[in-house]
Amino acid sequence: MTAPLSRTAIADLARGVREGDRRSLARAITVVESSNDRDLPVKSELLDELLHTGRPTIRIGISGTPGVGKSTLIERLGMVLIANGKRVAVLAVDPTSARTGGSILGDKTRMPQLAVHPDAYVRPSAAGFGLGGITAATASAVQVCEAAGYDIVLVETVGVGQSETAVSEVTDLFLLLHSPGGGDELQGIKRGVMELADRVCVTKADGDLLPAATLAQAELRSALHLMRPKPGREMTPVGMCSAATGDGVEELIDGLLAQHHTLSASSELATLRRSQSQLQFRRALDAGLLRRSEGLTREATERARTELEHGRTSPVSAAWSVLNSLPQV
Amino acid sequence: MTAPLSRTAIADLARGVREGDRRSLARAITVVESSNDRDLPVKSELLDELLHTGRPTIRIGISGTPGVGKSTLIERLGMVLIANGKRVAVLAVDPTSARTGGSILGDKTRMPQLAVHPDAYVRPSAAGFGLGGITAATASAVQVCEAAGYDIVLVETVGVGQSETAVSEVTDLFLLLHSPGGGDELQGIKRGVMELADRVCVTKADGDLLPAATLAQAELRSALHLMRPKPGREMTPVGMCSAATGDGVEELIDGLLAQHHTLSASSELATLRRSQSQLQFRRALDAGLLRRSEGLTREATERARTELEHGRTSPVSAAWSVLNSLPQV
Repeated sequence: MTAPLSRTAIADLARGVREGDRRSLARAITVVESSNDRDLPVKSELLDELLHTGRPTIRIGISGTPGVGKSTLIERLGMVLIANGKRVAVLAVDPTSARTGGSILGDKTRMPQLAVHPDAYVRPSAAGFGLGGITAATASAVQVCEAAGYDIVLVETVGVGQSETAVSEVTDLFLLLHSPGGGDELQGIKRGVMELADRVCVTKADGDLLPAATLAQAELRSALHLMRPKPGREMTPVGMCSAATGDGVEELIDGLLAQHHTLSASSELATLRRSQSQLQFRRALDAGLLRRSEGLTREATERARTELEHGRTSPVSAAWSVLNSLPQV
Repeated sequence: MTAPLSRTAIADLARGVREGDRRSLARAITVVESSNDRDLPVKSELLDELLHTGRPTIRIGISGTPGVGKSTLIERLGMVLIANGKRVAVLAVDPTSARTGGSILGDKTRMPQLAVHPDAYVRPSAAGFGLGGITAATASAVQVCEAAGYDIVLVETVGVGQSETAVSEVTDLFLLLHSPGGGDELQGIKRGVMELADRVCVTKADGDLLPAATLAQAELRSALHLMRPKPGREMTPVGMCSAATGDGVEELIDGLLAQHHTLSASSELATLRRSQSQLQFRRALDAGLLRRSEGLTREATERARTELEHGRTSPVSAAWSVLNSLPQV
């Protein structure tokens, strides 16, 4: 953003979003994902204008290594959900896009049917993230989509870096997709990611790959058996499906919706979302406070880092030397 | 601490530590583990006085669920290491001790031989942790022990909370102990802890428990086979031993020392310790900066949390409202 928006312009933008205008929606997401601190006041005002959708919503994170068939499956899932009367938004979180200048996710050509469907909205990843990082930016984008009337938000991420954790922190359920290969391929799952999953699904379970998919399903089940389930949860279900034939897709959707229904029927969903909000608040606030002190501490921090690097001080003393250099408040 | 120490008193204390005086050592650890911010200047000066031991040292983290036999095995390990000419310090990190007012670890009666041996030093957990949390406090205590002439520091922690991560961040190698039981018991391993391990050892592998221990070893191996090893590392070795008969204890020590030798022969150990120092510095500095702003932000934060709790604002807007309430710097 180059110029700050006036109060009226923000209210207009919010109205556009609520009325389902796609250009307003796109613009609003750009605003809330802005990594420029100067956009914070506008971002905050816009987000506050877009509170209270008043409808129940479903937030599902979807991850899997490149090549697992995420977009093909999401296209299928989305079309089935739309056929069931839902409006579906797909957000892509790609932590690599800031580096590459482009996004390997959320490319609309990869979801040709959803991309043009009036009841769907597909949004590629932002190129940068503001205060509170990926988590805060994505949580804000989810909020905007819900305000625009989407019942289900699918947040897609690629299996690199910390993005899976970030996505699991802004969604109600986390679906991990896995290729139809076991053994060595199982070892390719990033540390900790399997533990985030509320459901695992083996993709491409059709034709020649069906035996491999069945084997992968069995191996994933035994791997998950060795992990403690999330507190109060059943063991993570492992299914398989084919986006090409559609086999297993209905079961996958039914499974996810049933899990979500269990969450929302108890107070668990409300509790989860409240604690996610508080966590996002704390993260964004801490990031803001630290960024605020950056200018004041930059030189002292550089000096301390050098002393530490040369073994001339200990970590705690180095921290104290920086704190001690600050004006007393 | 009640009264701040003078420069001379700090220098005297440091000299006492370096000369191997046990009372000075105990006092110095109390100083560096202090959770009182007012002790920071003294803590920093003492730590800077105790830099450069000039000898190679070995830092090993040891964890396992309650009942796995940590202290019995550590007693054995310690006595064997002492027989090999080493001086051994045992630090216990017990995050529960702050709540219970006592420590379930590091109780000297649990390591009767080590506790009284002139070449060993056993130190129960601190009851509180200062700036930078458990990690910074433990890193500082390790530094003091090394300055006091201990070649090997074993950092023991119980399998609860975040303490395993903290311990792995201040040690060169992390040893995970496991009971001689597989199947359901394997599920009891806390999420993520197995991934921290550089070596796993099944305990109590003797008598009637030997078959169960052998089974647990096999199951742990297959569980670890499903995880990606740390970058550049071999698959995590899984052994078994008995503290009662001594079987496998020499192999465990040889394995750990060989792994450590590989680390230190390459530049990996130096790199690891440097990055640990920088991380501890950053954590302690961030904690200090945030604590410094606590007084200024307390009221605004409380208000923001309440607004958030009632759904009257979004996380990012709530953070902005607090930041905006601060005086400009």
